[in-house]
Amino acid sequence: MELADDDPFGVHNLPLCAFGAGCCSWVGVRIGDRILNLAGAEHEGLVDAGGAFDGEHTLNRFLARGRPTWTRVREQLTELFTDPKRRGAVEPLLFNLAGVRLNLPFEVADYVDFYSFEEHATNLGKLFRPGAEPLLPNWKHLPVGYHGRAGTVVVSGTDIPRPWGQRKRPDESAPTYGPSERLDIEAELGFVVGVDSEGAVSVDDFREHVFGAVLVNDWSARDLQAWEYQPLGPFTGKSFRTSISPWVVPLDALDAAEVPGRRQDPEVLPYLRGREHYGYDIRLEVFWNETLVARPPFEGMYWTPAQQLAHLTVNGAFARTGDLYASGTISGAVAEETGSFIERTWNGAQPVRLADGSTRSFLLDGDTVTISATAPGVDGAVVAFGEVTGTVVKQS
Amino acid sequence: MELADDDPFGVHNLPLCAFGAGCCSWVGVRIGDRILNLAGAEHEGLVDAGGAFDGEHTLNRFLARGRPTWTRVREQLTELFTDPKRRGAVEPLLFNLAGVRLNLPFEVADYVDFYSFEEHATNLGKLFRPGAEPLLPNWKHLPVGYHGRAGTVVVSGTDIPRPWGQRKRPDESAPTYGPSERLDIEAELGFVVGVDSEGAVSVDDFREHVFGAVLVNDWSARDLQAWEYQPLGPFTGKSFRTSISPWVVPLDALDAAEVPGRRQDPEVLPYLRGREHYGYDIRLEVFWNETLVARPPFEGMYWTPAQQLAHLTVNGAFARTGDLYASGTISGAVAEETGSFIERTWNGAQPVRLADGSTRSFLLDGDTVTISATAPGVDGAVVAFGEVTGTVVKQS
Repeated sequence: MELADDDPFGVHNLPLCAFGAGCCSWVGVRIGDRILNLAGAEHEGLVDAGGAFDGEHTLNRFLARGRPTWTRVREQLTELFTDPKRRGAVEPLLFNLAGVRLNLPFEVADYVDFYSFEEHATNLGKLFRPGAEPLLPNWKHLPVGYHGRAGTVVVSGTDIPRPWGQRKRPDESAPTYGPSERLDIEAELGFVVGVDSEGAVSVDDFREHVFGAVLVNDWSARDLQAWEYQPLGPFTGKSFRTSISPWVVPLDALDAAEVPGRRQDPEVLPYLRGREHYGYDIRLEVFWNETLVARPPFEGMYWTPAQQLAHLTVNGAFARTGDLYASGTISGAVAEETGSFIERTWNGAQPVRLADGSTRSFLLDGDTVTISATAPGVDGAVVAFGEVTGTVVKQS
Repeated sequence: MELADDDPFGVHNLPLCAFGAGCCSWVGVRIGDRILNLAGAEHEGLVDAGGAFDGEHTLNRFLARGRPTWTRVREQLTELFTDPKRRGAVEPLLFNLAGVRLNLPFEVADYVDFYSFEEHATNLGKLFRPGAEPLLPNWKHLPVGYHGRAGTVVVSGTDIPRPWGQRKRPDESAPTYGPSERLDIEAELGFVVGVDSEGAVSVDDFREHVFGAVLVNDWSARDLQAWEYQPLGPFTGKSFRTSISPWVVPLDALDAAEVPGRRQDPEVLPYLRGREHYGYDIRLEVFWNETLVARPPFEGMYWTPAQQLAHLTVNGAFARTGDLYASGTISGAVAEETGSFIERTWNGAQPVRLADGSTRSFLLDGDTVTISATAPGVDGAVVAFGEVTGTVVKQS
């Protein structure tokens, strides 16, 4: 393959996807600016996934196969893309990225959203419950999370109709119905379960169940959310759409990005402890109509993805192929590191100025938000997550 | 068919199911104590569902077909079961209930749980937030709900492993980890979406999207729930298992059970209004180890199932084939009408005495809970929902 050594979609990355051209669709792997048709590659004997790509339109079947298959196919792809003698066999199976549709990469089973960044939880606590202690007593004992709507998870590039619903301002005596006036984003990373569990998954078994990660924009209507969320949590303020990137970056591509997990005080209960305690050094960028407005740092995550999965299943709940669980909004200590606009503009009190000179507090119709991310790869390389993007449109 | 006129599974009912015998499984319809194999019936030309039963192990494909197909098949089945001359054609396709496995009747897409009984919400508010106003300000303006875990919805008869997790008593300084000590039930009715929506479903379009109803036991670990649920709602306290009955009772079977919906004050916003406002006169019975402990009355529901679906989709969220949304715990005004044990025993202060002389506040290992329900049918008949049952077992 002709690839620059520093291509962030080089052989050290190899994110998987589902894609289509014309009437057909397949699963594939990205290499540079091209996609290898994996069903074709297996048919030609270039990789061996035991038939998990054949006739598939999503990654679910491959995800369900588990780590031995994931590892073998990754090794085979690495060899394939680095051996100049095999270029002739690979070329006919490549599609140019510019000529294909990128589909939702996997069928989402259950979608869970966590809340695992201390700065975000503190900020939201201050904004939603002014005057009260922002971090609730449970927050440092367990990764707070809740179930979202799996059926409205859409792939990057899908338009986001502005949600309608109920909202009530503090100065109003009754709620009104209409389009959300405080439409926001949440920049997150989502983890994709490959292998089912029959119950609890220990912290140490994280990599046996989770294949990789995607970028998530958990669009949020703050006015709907504020009015509805007590006592049972967010519902219509979140469930209208959640966007994910088309690329599932394998955990294997993130080995060089592992960083020590944050020190947890008070000490966590035994079921949340593992032999290792690590997070990932992943750096996000949030663009509001092409203006870079924030760089949320994933490495500040308080609860690790492995702890999240252990908590999610501690009660004996099954994890299933296609389960997606998101990290929670990624926010650092300063406004320029926050992964939501309600934090970035401090509830509209500090609007951001875009490159065209206009200012914003919340999203306007026609606004586009794009979130991208990179992580350190091996030998100084960069691993890219690509992007998750969406444009707000008036609900018809 | 030889059926007593008052058989609650007579031709006025016709609930659908998924069932199996030996290595095979099919979808079927219950008539008396027998199940008609619907794929076989279509193959023999006795019904015409456009092939929606052929080779299917769940009802999803049939559910997706929509009301014209639902109505046609129901009419054909009614004719088939009432015409003595066709008995010979039907008999070979019948299975005795005693000889089959009853499977999860449909693949659950998204699972939403509402909270739409005023007495229950008031009781839980008093128990979870003592000293505060039990009904929050939003409760009479919108049907409060949240997403649950679709992947742990199981069919009646499945054992329920006691969940483990975190809980903290008020007198403890830190949470502990262990099996739930306050395992409870929630007796509910669940509505099953057949036809996808591209966004909001109006109150008037309820019957175009919803096929029918099942019984739901939304098992709840109150100690886990109390510690985890703020600010984002119930999570591990609910997500371990949710049981449903194997029978999907068509809305068509419930016409005679329609009753005027409860008067709503304050007046609801326009998107929650329809040409009609009706609920259902369905009477549940809750058995704790065969002792009848409560008779929750469904007709007391404050928000109707049609309003719940309208609210669930008001933000443009899709409804999908297989979506299940539950009514919320069904509770009337007195302890003997409450659909949860935390209400029935007032948080353990008033234990119930079972037929064997023992008393209970919450569930013990080995306890079985069975919920059944009936509704008035046409001409004085009774429509039965069958039952949803489950036994608590120690988590291995």
